[in-house]
Amino acid sequence: MSTRVIQREELSEMEHLFRINLVNSITGYKSANLIGTIDEASQQTNLAVFSSVTHFGSAPPLLGFVLRPTTVFRGTYNNIKKTGYYTINHVNASIIEAAHHTSAKYPAEVSEFDQTNLTAAFENGFLAPYVKEATIKIGVEFKQEIPIALNGTILILGQIKELIVPDECLLNDGFLDLNAAETVTVSGLDAYHLPKRLARFEYARPNQPIKKILD
Amino acid sequence: MSTRVIQREELSEMEHLFRINLVNSITGYKSANLIGTIDEASQQTNLAVFSSVTHFGSAPPLLGFVLRPTTVFRGTYNNIKKTGYYTINHVNASIIEAAHHTSAKYPAEVSEFDQTNLTAAFENGFLAPYVKEATIKIGVEFKQEIPIALNGTILILGQIKELIVPDECLLNDGFLDLNAAETVTVSGLDAYHLPKRLARFEYARPNQPIKKILD
Repeated sequence: MSTRVIQREELSEMEHLFRINLVNSITGYKSANLIGTIDEASQQTNLAVFSSVTHFGSAPPLLGFVLRPTTVFRGTYNNIKKTGYYTINHVNASIIEAAHHTSAKYPAEVSEFDQTNLTAAFENGFLAPYVKEATIKIGVEFKQEIPIALNGTILILGQIKELIVPDECLLNDGFLDLNAAETVTVSGLDAYHLPKRLARFEYARPNQPIKKILD
Repeated sequence: MSTRVIQREELSEMEHLFRINLVNSITGYKSANLIGTIDEASQQTNLAVFSSVTHFGSAPPLLGFVLRPTTVFRGTYNNIKKTGYYTINHVNASIIEAAHHTSAKYPAEVSEFDQTNLTAAFENGFLAPYVKEATIKIGVEFKQEIPIALNGTILILGQIKELIVPDECLLNDGFLDLNAAETVTVSGLDAYHLPKRLARFEYARPNQPIKKILD
């Protein structure tokens, strides 16, 4: 298999779209989540797909995602800052087109819920809207924004307030079977994939063979 | 499908392993990467698997990952801070056991390269070791560490210095075909999956149907 080595100088001189496709692909597979918010008056909902939701810790349960505040995602940012709450909803195989559609640049007064077949669901008294069609959902409380001076993006950190998971996906040891939930993963800017499990391994210990828990 | 709602209080009272399995599963699928480093004397290599490598921007090309500096990953942290460089290597289907093995708590004087069948490869004069068996590799220059006061973790930000990609995976528009590279994705702490593409979509525009670029 022949390989290509691309140095920084070549990367910076690449055509814009080529570079963003490549750099967005290079970290590997990414989480695919819809972030739901509502404005301060609890009138106008907003929904946007993100591929940067990342685990930051379990105690307290902290999640982060990256915002480029000058884009279509400004609605998400403003709503989170004003209300303090948002939802994170797994994209599953049956809603990939609608999820991708939420990345279109609709004006602020248009809700992506109205432009797609996704339904805003207010559950358990949580302030921000969940996506009814998502099977795994997280209600999150905003904790901190960290400006990234290197490129002007913002890391948003939040703490889990509640989880909504299908009983059949929650295994005895807390592991969630994302295959059963048909949660998808994203590569690059625009490709959606359905994973198939190769193996689940036991905790790794020095000088001991790696054992499978599940195929 | 019956669902379970788990509130924050219930989550915080869960048995430790149950909670970390659940919270590590809840963000969805994660990138699976091996981070390679070497000490200041260019003698002792280190290799560790991470599931938090995240795209932070394309211009400049910035990547982040999350470190819990009190764990087995301290070697990675110390080497990056001393030398300024590291490699990020995609885990592919043929090296999932070895990749998982690197999470075992070996003493600092033991290289994970010597405990697994993974090979340290010094390529293109880059200071830190690549994983020879990985097909997609990134040479990264350390840029900034951001302490996360909420839980004591550290976000490490770096800029891409070079990319090594198979010719057959690099499409005409810069998109990387991760399926062809057999790059895997992780869920939870310990489950490795091989994704199959459902669709690649065109750029989404308001009031226009979503079109496929690729099946």
